Amino acid sequence: MHFAHLALRELVTRLLEEDVGYGDITTLAIVPPQARGHGRLLAKEDLVLAGLEVALAVFQTVDHTSRLDCATADGVLLSAGSVIAEIHGSAQGLLTAERVALNLLQRLSGVATATRRYVDAVRHTQARIIDTRKTTPGLRLLEKYAIRVGGGHNHRFGLGDGVLIKDNHIAIAGGISTAVSLARQAVSHLQKIEVEVEDFTQLQEALTAGADAILLDNMTPEQTREAVRLVRKAPGGEHILLESSGGITLHTAHLYAEAGVDLISVGALTHSAPAVDISLEMTAED
Amino acid sequence: MHFAHLALRELVTRLLEEDVGYGDITTLAIVPPQARGHGRLLAKEDLVLAGLEVALAVFQTVDHTSRLDCATADGVLLSAGSVIAEIHGSAQGLLTAERVALNLLQRLSGVATATRRYVDAVRHTQARIIDTRKTTPGLRLLEKYAIRVGGGHNHRFGLGDGVLIKDNHIAIAGGISTAVSLARQAVSHLQKIEVEVEDFTQLQEALTAGADAILLDNMTPEQTREAVRLVRKAPGGEHILLESSGGITLHTAHLYAEAGVDLISVGALTHSAPAVDISLEMTAED
Amino acid sequence: MHFAHLALRELVTRLLEEDVGYGDITTLAIVPPQARGHGRLLAKEDLVLAGLEVALAVFQTVDHTSRLDCATADGVLLSAGSVIAEIHGSAQGLLTAERVALNLLQRLSGVATATRRYVDAVRHTQARIIDTRKTTPGLRLLEKYAIRVGGGHNHRFGLGDGVLIKDNHIAIAGGISTAVSLARQAVSHLQKIEVEVEDFTQLQEALTAGADAILLDNMTPEQTREAVRLVRKAPGGEHILLESSGGITLHTAHLYAEAGVDLISVGALTHSAPAVDISLEMTAED
Amino acid sequence: MHFAHLALRELVTRLLEEDVGYGDITTLAIVPPQARGHGRLLAKEDLVLAGLEVALAVFQTVDHTSRLDCATADGVLLSAGSVIAEIHGSAQGLLTAERVALNLLQRLSGVATATRRYVDAVRHTQARIIDTRKTTPGLRLLEKYAIRVGGGHNHRFGLGDGVLIKDNHIAIAGGISTAVSLARQAVSHLQKIEVEVEDFTQLQEALTAGADAILLDNMTPEQTREAVRLVRKAPGGEHILLESSGGITLHTAHLYAEAGVDLISVGALTHSAPAVDISLEMTAED
Amino acid sequence: MHFAHLALRELVTRLLEEDVGYGDITTLAIVPPQARGHGRLLAKEDLVLAGLEVALAVFQTVDHTSRLDCATADGVLLSAGSVIAEIHGSAQGLLTAERVALNLLQRLSGVATATRRYVDAVRHTQARIIDTRKTTPGLRLLEKYAIRVGGGHNHRFGLGDGVLIKDNHIAIAGGISTAVSLARQAVSHLQKIEVEVEDFTQLQEALTAGADAILLDNMTPEQTREAVRLVRKAPGGEHILLESSGGITLHTAHLYAEAGVDLISVGALTHSAPAVDISLEMTAED
Amino acid sequence: MHFAHLALRELVTRLLEEDVGYGDITTLAIVPPQARGHGRLLAKEDLVLAGLEVALAVFQTVDHTSRLDCATADGVLLSAGSVIAEIHGSAQGLLTAERVALNLLQRLSGVATATRRYVDAVRHTQARIIDTRKTTPGLRLLEKYAIRVGGGHNHRFGLGDGVLIKDNHIAIAGGISTAVSLARQAVSHLQKIEVEVEDFTQLQEALTAGADAILLDNMTPEQTREAVRLVRKAPGGEHILLESSGGITLHTAHLYAEAGVDLISVGALTHSAPAVDISLEMTAED
Repeated sequence: MHFAHLALRELVTRLLEEDVGYGDITTLAIVPPQARGHGRLLAKEDLVLAGLEVALAVFQTVDHTSRLDCATADGVLLSAGSVIAEIHGSAQGLLTAERVALNLLQRLSGVATATRRYVDAVRHTQARIIDTRKTTPGLRLLEKYAIRVGGGHNHRFGLGDGVLIKDNHIAIAGGISTAVSLARQAVSHLQKIEVEVEDFTQLQEALTAGADAILLDNMTPEQTREAVRLVRKAPGGEHILLESSGGITLHTAHLYAEAGVDLISVGALTHSAPAVDISLEMTAED
Repeated sequence: MHFAHLALRELVTRLLEEDVGYGDITTLAIVPPQARGHGRLLAKEDLVLAGLEVALAVFQTVDHTSRLDCATADGVLLSAGSVIAEIHGSAQGLLTAERVALNLLQRLSGVATATRRYVDAVRHTQARIIDTRKTTPGLRLLEKYAIRVGGGHNHRFGLGDGVLIKDNHIAIAGGISTAVSLARQAVSHLQKIEVEVEDFTQLQEALTAGADAILLDNMTPEQTREAVRLVRKAPGGEHILLESSGGITLHTAHLYAEAGVDLISVGALTHSAPAVDISLEMTAED
Repeated sequence: MHFAHLALRELVTRLLEEDVGYGDITTLAIVPPQARGHGRLLAKEDLVLAGLEVALAVFQTVDHTSRLDCATADGVLLSAGSVIAEIHGSAQGLLTAERVALNLLQRLSGVATATRRYVDAVRHTQARIIDTRKTTPGLRLLEKYAIRVGGGHNHRFGLGDGVLIKDNHIAIAGGISTAVSLARQAVSHLQKIEVEVEDFTQLQEALTAGADAILLDNMTPEQTREAVRLVRKAPGGEHILLESSGGITLHTAHLYAEAGVDLISVGALTHSAPAVDISLEMTAED
Repeated sequence: MHFAHLALRELVTRLLEEDVGYGDITTLAIVPPQARGHGRLLAKEDLVLAGLEVALAVFQTVDHTSRLDCATADGVLLSAGSVIAEIHGSAQGLLTAERVALNLLQRLSGVATATRRYVDAVRHTQARIIDTRKTTPGLRLLEKYAIRVGGGHNHRFGLGDGVLIKDNHIAIAGGISTAVSLARQAVSHLQKIEVEVEDFTQLQEALTAGADAILLDNMTPEQTREAVRLVRKAPGGEHILLESSGGITLHTAHLYAEAGVDLISVGALTHSAPAVDISLEMTAED
Repeated sequence: MHFAHLALRELVTRLLEEDVGYGDITTLAIVPPQARGHGRLLAKEDLVLAGLEVALAVFQTVDHTSRLDCATADGVLLSAGSVIAEIHGSAQGLLTAERVALNLLQRLSGVATATRRYVDAVRHTQARIIDTRKTTPGLRLLEKYAIRVGGGHNHRFGLGDGVLIKDNHIAIAGGISTAVSLARQAVSHLQKIEVEVEDFTQLQEALTAGADAILLDNMTPEQTREAVRLVRKAPGGEHILLESSGGITLHTAHLYAEAGVDLISVGALTHSAPAVDISLEMTAED
Repeated sequence: MHFAHLALRELVTRLLEEDVGYGDITTLAIVPPQARGHGRLLAKEDLVLAGLEVALAVFQTVDHTSRLDCATADGVLLSAGSVIAEIHGSAQGLLTAERVALNLLQRLSGVATATRRYVDAVRHTQARIIDTRKTTPGLRLLEKYAIRVGGGHNHRFGLGDGVLIKDNHIAIAGGISTAVSLARQAVSHLQKIEVEVEDFTQLQEALTAGADAILLDNMTPEQTREAVRLVRKAPGGEHILLESSGGITLHTAHLYAEAGVDLISVGALTHSAPAVDISLEMTAED
C-alpha cells in the first residue's frame, strides 16, 4: 500500500536500531566499505512466502544501493530448496541487514504458511479463516498482511475499528440487550455490532438484541451446528454473521466450517505459528 | 533496571497505540468512566512467570490509578491454576489494556518457561544456556530479560556489543587469521573475539589465530567432544570459551553440555517458544 | 478516555512547542518565577462548552502545579458572561499557556456550539447530525469529541475504520455492483459498506448491490424524500441507512431530516465553525 | 524554504497518519495497485491560492511518483472555475491523499483570500495588515505563510521571537516602566519591545518607558487618530511603531489605517477565515 | 523555566540513552537493586556553578526517587573544595547517571566560569558580554542559560529570532542598503536589523541604510573607538547598538568595552571554554 | 558506515532545527530562492580533518541539490590555508547550513587533531591512545569516530557494551574479588572484565580475581612501570591488558607508554580539545 511504505520504513529503522546498536563492529572491522556482496534467499522447507517487500526495505534502509531480484512473489507456495530472491549490494550492508531481514521474513512466512493450511482445510465450505488481536506486539499490520497473503481474512485491526462486545462488557452493562443498544447509540453507523456468546441463552439474547454478528465462543462443533440452525431460522437470521472461536485446531477447523459458520478465528495463526526456515547464502562479488 | 523504565514506558505506549488506535470504541460506548474493575491474572498451564513489571506498565499507562497486587514474582515456576496477581483499576482501563498486557505476559513467560526446560536439562554440567539474535523484532530487550528469568544467560545484545566472526566475514577477509587480526585491531580492548567454525580445519585456524571464543556450528555431540578435547589441550586452550550452536533441541542439549562446551545457544528459545496460557478474569467492583 | 490521555499530552506538548519556541521571553523577563497567578475563564458569548480537559492539559503541561476549579462541564450551554473555571498556578505558567489553551477551547467550543444548533434543528426527527473528514488537520480526535459534546455523532474517524465507496471508486471498479462486491470480499466482516450515489440510477444500483448504507449526495429535499420512499419499499430496505450530504445548512437541515434520512453529515461543523469568544482574566495573587 | 521542506514532510506525514490510520480500506479493496489516475484541482469560487507546495507534499508522501503540473502559483487571484493544477499518479495514491491535500489547500487559501481583502482595504495607506498568534493549533508556520501569500505581514511567530508586554505583565511588574526596563535588560539586543496599552494614560507611560512599538488595544478609530498624533509629536515618536488591534473588521480596517497606524493585526485572518471551495476531479487513466 | 522543563527531560533522556545503551551492565551485575547510595558533588577548582537543575534532571530521570540537597545555587562563585550538593538515591541509579550528569555540569559551569571572567573584565563599562551561535551542537539552550548565569547576555537564539546581515547577504543583495531594505520589508516589525561591517565604507553604508545595530567585525580597539565616534555623532546614532566581534580575548575585551561599544560577542565562551573539574564522591548507605 | 547514515541524518536534522528555528529570516528576506552559491571550505590552521561526511549531510539536509567536491579526506593532516572542499548549491541553502556544518567540522577536526598529537607522542611504543566517556553530550558516536580518524582507538561506547569496575562498585560489592565474580557471572561471555585500581594492594587483588584488564588510575610513570612489571611476571599476566588513566598530558603520555602499558586513556581528547579554525568563503554564482 502506498502510505504504509512510510510506516514500514520507520518500523524497519527501529528494528535495525535494536539490532545494530553502536554499529556492526565485526563487519566494520573486517569488511572493506567498497566490497560488493551477493546473496541468495533460499526456502529451507515448504512454505508460503510473505514479506518480500519488508525484507527489501530492511536491505535498502541499511544500503540504499542494494537490489533484490525476486524469483517469486508473496503468496506463492514454495518447496524446500527454492530460490526466493537474489540480492546485490555492499558486502557490509548485506551482512549488517541479514538478521533483521531474516527474522521478519521467517516470521511472516510462518504466519502465511499456517494460514494457508487452515484455509485449505475449509476450502470446500463458505467459511473464512480470520485472525485475532493475539498478534506479536509491534508487528500487527505486518502479521495481518501475512494472514491475507496466506488466504485468510482480517478481523478488526484493533479496538478502534470494530465493536466486539465480550462477557465483561455484558456484565457491566447488565445484559446483552443494554450493551448492544449502548454501542449502537455511540458508534459510527458504519460499524456492525458483534456479540460474544457462551451458551444458547446468550445466543438468544444476542438475536433479540439485534446483533449484526455473533461470536460463538468455545462451542463444540455440534453446539455450533445447533447454533447456526437456530440463528438462520430466526427472522433476519440469514444476514447475521456467525463466528466460531476458541481452541479450534487445524484438525477441527473443518468441523466448524461444515457446521455452517461464516468465520473461524484462530489466535494460533499469529501467537504461535513457528517461524519457517529461510536462509541467506552470501558470497563476496569479484 | 532504573533507566530501562523509561524505555519500557515508551515501548508500551507504542504497543498500546497499535492496539487501541482511535480508542476502544466498544468499551467507551458501554462502560461508564467511573466504574471500577477488578481482575485476576491466572496461570492456565504450568509456566515460569516473566513480565509482571511489563504487564503493570501496560495497565498503568492506560490508567495510572491501576494497582497490581502480586501473589508471586518473575522467575517462579507456577502450576496451572495459580493466581499471579490481582488488579484494581477503572473498568474501562482494565478492558482496554487487557489484550496488550496478556500478549506480552504470555510471550515472555513462554520464553522463560522454554529456557527453564533447557537449563534443567544441563543442570548437572557447567554449560550455560544462552540466547541468540533470533528474537522477536522489537522485543529484544524484553526477551533477553525473559531468558535470564528462565535461568539462561545472554549472548550479545546486538551487533554493536560483541564480535562474532562468521563464514562470510572469513571469506571476505580471506581467512580466519586475517579476520581475527583485523577485528582485534579495530574493536575496543574490552571485546573478546569469537569465531564461528564449521569443521576441524577451521577450528585449528581459530586456535592459531588466538580467538577468545569459538562457536562450533552444526557439529554432532561426538564432533563436539573431540573439538573440546582438541582445544583444551592446546596451549592456553583452557581459557577459550566454547559454544555449541545449530539445531540443538531440548532432547540433545545435554549431550552437548556433557561434551564439555561452556555455552549452548538455542535460537528456538525466542523464535519459536509457544506463548503460554494466562488469562485475566475480570469482575466489575461494586 | 483513559489511553487518549497520553495522546493528548503529546499533542498539547507539540502545540506548546509551536507557540513557545525558545521560551516565553517576555514573561521570563518580567514575571518572577515564584509569583502565583489566578485566572478566570469566561464565556464572552452564548456557547456550548467543549475542551475543558484539553485546556487543563495545556496549563498542567506548562506548570504541573496548576489547578482548574471548574464551575461547569463540557456539553453545558453557557450564556455570555458565565464563569467557566478558575485557574490557580504560577503566574509564569498561566501567561505562557494562555494562548494555546484559549485557541483550543475556543475552537472546540465553536464546533460544539455549531453542532448543537444543527441537532436542535432536527430534534423532532430521528435523524442524527454527523461530521465528516473535513476536520482541522491535526485536531481530528478533538473535533470529533466536540461533535459528540454538541450532541452530534461521528462518521468514520478516517480512511481506516469505515468503507465509503465514492464516484472515483465506482468509475475505476466499472460499476457500483463490482465495487461493493470487491469491498465486501476484502474488508473485515465488522464493516458496513456505504455507497455514495448522485442520482436515482445509482441509487437503484446500490440497492441491487446490497449496500448497507447509502449516501445521497447533493440531492434536494424533494429528491431525498423520493429516495427514502424508494429505498424503504425495497426488500430489506428498512435496514439500509440513508445519509444526506452536500451543501446542507442550518436552515435546510430540517427538510432533509423530515424527508426521512437517518443521517445528515455537515462538513461546515468542522471546516468553518467560527471560534467562540472565551477570555482568560488573570490577576496576580498576593 | 529549504530547511522547512523537512518540517513540511514531517507535518504532512503526521496529518496523513491521522486520516489514513490502518490504511485506506475502501481504496485498497477496489482500486488495483497498478491503476494510474489523473486529477484536476479546480477553484470553485474566487480565491487567492496558497499551499500548492503543501498539497504536492501530501500527494508525494503517499505516492512518490505523483506529479503536479501547476497552471498557476501561490498568491494568484483565481476566479471560480479556474484550473489550479493537473495531478498524475497512482489511482490509489490520489484517492488516499485527496482529503488531506484538500483540507490544507482550502484552509490556507482561505487565509490568503481573507488577508488579500484586508490588504486591499488599506492599500491606499502605509499600514501593514499583520496576523496574530490566534492560529490553528499545529498549523502556525503554514498559516503565517498564507498570510504573506495574501499580501499581509507576520507578527512574531511565537512567544520566543518577540516581546509583547500585556496587561498582566504590567500588573505583575507594577507598571509599564518597570516592565519595559526588565525586558530591555533580559532579552537580546535584537528584539524590539512592544507594549499593549488600553488608554491614554498607559500610552503616555509607554512613551516615557521608551517602548519601541505600542499596541493600541480596542480603541476606536478616533481614539486611534488621537493616539497617533500624540505619539508622533513626542520626541523620537516618529520611529515608534503603532499597531491597532481588537475587533477590527474588513469594514473598519481602513479607518484605522487612515488614522495613521503602521500595523493592523487581525485575529480573524486565522481563527475564523472560512475555508474556500476547491475540488479535485479525478479520472482513471487508460 | 516552566515549559523548558519538558524539553530538558527529553534532552536528558536522549543523552542517557547515548551513554547507557543496552543498560549499565557493570552496575546491574554488581550492585543490588535495593542498595541506597549517597553522593557529594564537589568543586575541584574555582568555578561559577551552572546546571544544578540539569544534573538533578539526569539523576531523577534514571531514578525518580533520587534527591538533591543543594548547598549552593547556579551563579555562585565557588572555591575549590566546596560542596555543591548532596545526592541520595538508589546506588544503581547514582552510578548509572553519574557520567552524564557530570559531563553536563562540568561543561555548563565551564561556560559560566569563562563568561564571568569576561564580564568582570568589562564591569567598569556599559558593555554587555554576549554569546554567539558557535555553541555545542545540541546544547544551545543550556549553554545560552550558562552564559546568563555567568553574567553575560544572549545574542539571538538561532537564525529564526534575529536578523544579522553578513557579507554574503550583502554581496547577493548588491549592497547594504538593498539588504537592509529587503529585510525591513520582510521580517516582523519586532525585529531590529543588525548589519555586520568590515570597514568604514560599509559602516557608513549601514548608517545610511538605517541599521538598528551594527557589528564591527575584526576591528582593532582603535578602529572601534573611531567607529563609535562616527556612529554616535550621526543623526539618531545614539540609539544604534554597536557590537564588537572577532578574535577578542579576555585580555583585549576591556579595550573594546572602553572604546564605547554596547556589546562584545565572544565565540570562545561556548566553542572552547574548558570543562571545569567537578567530582562526585559516592558512598553506599548503610 | 551504512546504517549510521540514517542516524546521522536524524542528528543533523535535530541540530539544524536547533539553529534554524522558525526559519533563517535574514536569508529568506534577502537571498532569492533561485540564486546559486559557491563556497570553499578552508583550513585556517594546521589540523587533522574529521567530519567531511557530516558536513555534507548538513548541507544536503538543507538543500538536497548541494554538492561537495572534496580536495582531501578525513584523516589527512592539512596545513593552514589548504582548501578542504568546494561546495555548490542554492545560495539560501549554503547560508542557512553554514554555521551548523562549521560547528561540527571544527569540533570533530579539533578532536582528531588533538588525538593525532598524542598518537605521535607514543608512536615509538606499543601503547594505544584511547578515549573515555567524557564526550560532548549528544555527539559521542561522532567524537568516537574523530578519535579513530586521529589514529586513536575507542574505549567502550557506553555503559552497555563494556564492563569497567570502579571504586564504588568495589565498595558496594565488598571487594574486587566479589565484584569480578558477580560481573563474570552476569554479563555476556564476550565481555572482558576491566577493574580500576588505585594502588598496589588493589592491583594484587585484581590479579587474583582474574581481571582481563586493569586500569591503573592516577599513578605516576614510576608506579606504572612497577605495576607493569608486577603484572607481567604473574601467571597469565602477559595477556592482561593494562590501561593508564588520570591526568595524563601530551607531555607525560610517552612516559606511561614507555612504562609498558597497552592503553592510555585521555579524557581531554573530547572534553577539552579546542575547536580548530575552519572557514567557509562563499560567493554567489553568476
